[in-house]
Amino acid sequence: MIFFDLDDTILNTAKTNLLIFERAQMDLHIDMDADELRGRIRTALRSRMIRHMDFAYNETIGIDPLDYLLMEETYEEERLELFKNGVYDDVKDILGETTKEEFFAAFLKRRFDYTEAIDGMLELIKDLKAAGHKLGVITDGISEIQHRKAQTLGLDTLMDHVFASGDFGYGKPDTKFFFGAMKMAGVRPGESTMIGNNIDSDVFGALASGMKAIYFGAKPKNYEVLYAPDAKALREVLKKALC
Amino acid sequence: MIFFDLDDTILNTAKTNLLIFERAQMDLHIDMDADELRGRIRTALRSRMIRHMDFAYNETIGIDPLDYLLMEETYEEERLELFKNGVYDDVKDILGETTKEEFFAAFLKRRFDYTEAIDGMLELIKDLKAAGHKLGVITDGISEIQHRKAQTLGLDTLMDHVFASGDFGYGKPDTKFFFGAMKMAGVRPGESTMIGNNIDSDVFGALASGMKAIYFGAKPKNYEVLYAPDAKALREVLKKALC
Repeated sequence: MIFFDLDDTILNTAKTNLLIFERAQMDLHIDMDADELRGRIRTALRSRMIRHMDFAYNETIGIDPLDYLLMEETYEEERLELFKNGVYDDVKDILGETTKEEFFAAFLKRRFDYTEAIDGMLELIKDLKAAGHKLGVITDGISEIQHRKAQTLGLDTLMDHVFASGDFGYGKPDTKFFFGAMKMAGVRPGESTMIGNNIDSDVFGALASGMKAIYFGAKPKNYEVLYAPDAKALREVLKKALC
Repeated sequence: MIFFDLDDTILNTAKTNLLIFERAQMDLHIDMDADELRGRIRTALRSRMIRHMDFAYNETIGIDPLDYLLMEETYEEERLELFKNGVYDDVKDILGETTKEEFFAAFLKRRFDYTEAIDGMLELIKDLKAAGHKLGVITDGISEIQHRKAQTLGLDTLMDHVFASGDFGYGKPDTKFFFGAMKMAGVRPGESTMIGNNIDSDVFGALASGMKAIYFGAKPKNYEVLYAPDAKALREVLKKALC
């Protein structure tokens, strides 16, 4: 079975996040350099997230701070409110007349905008499926958000399974997450391959779980592992790894 | 009070680790490209570490896998033995006649080789001390190893305090570590500045704890924070931040 990471492996998360920021900026009529605005908001999100959220749990399942802006439901109402107040305070000086509610609403409505895939990845996944491979996603993050991202890309029908760390309570590289996912998919480590763009989470978590692993990125400096910098190269590396 | 991260902020950890590998390679007479050898050993270390060590604790305090080769004492004898067996198995094919004991001994004797500082950092620290600033280190890692690194650089006498996450049981960016360190140093967040090369651990952990923070590296892409790419620039940024 072939497992893929989601963010920045199948989903072009960097590009998608930029689009989400640009569209929210237009809605809010914030007259400011887009990169600087994004920098200010991300800085507020990340530091407030460390301060207000359940730290151990969040770090364990691995959450992108932007995802907190795109949730409809919360697992802890009170913490989310403190977090939102803090983020709003941090960026208030650039928001003009925008209220806290308007600010968060502008992002919340973007939660279906996760539509950009990495070049060639969806084609590769379709071809692997057509060739009879069992396929899955193993991704860190909030269940609601990660499953929605997978749906917008059509992965809920292309993949046999989509596993988010939020469903398990443990995130990559913890072997408990990999073992749990493989158990639910009914496959053994020796017949599983993990592909992802984070050397620690995706590659070493998978290797430690007895799976094969392919790093999705340029040749790593300090490690000797299989790697592929793009979908075309990945197709070739997979051919060899699966034989 | 000014706090510094240790690895790759004061200590030139990348360069030092390379020296440690090169010297061990000479001792062991391993005839192989140095980069490839280092890659093989680091890959074995990292994946075996995830598999055999107390995962949650290790990830919480943030340990460089190489540090496991340089420990004299262990906090869990049995796990370390399993880990060592696994690492040795993974690299056995390149070690020739070298026994497991010889392999680990070649690295263990290098534990005083942490001598290379980042250009200009020790001079900056001496000048800050001469100017009357209280100074400290806040570093992730095993107590034994981190305090030894600090000693080889003379930081035990230059700094008022050296705090390692292994002493606390919590690592950066968890605010519990920053609050604990500040409490022991007798300073408040509003009068504290943290400097480090990891944006998540050093910068956001410090900001979330109410400290000022300076990223030691090139301008970050996605965040708006104070930054300095080298010791000279850091000297200027500190001047402004402290006024």
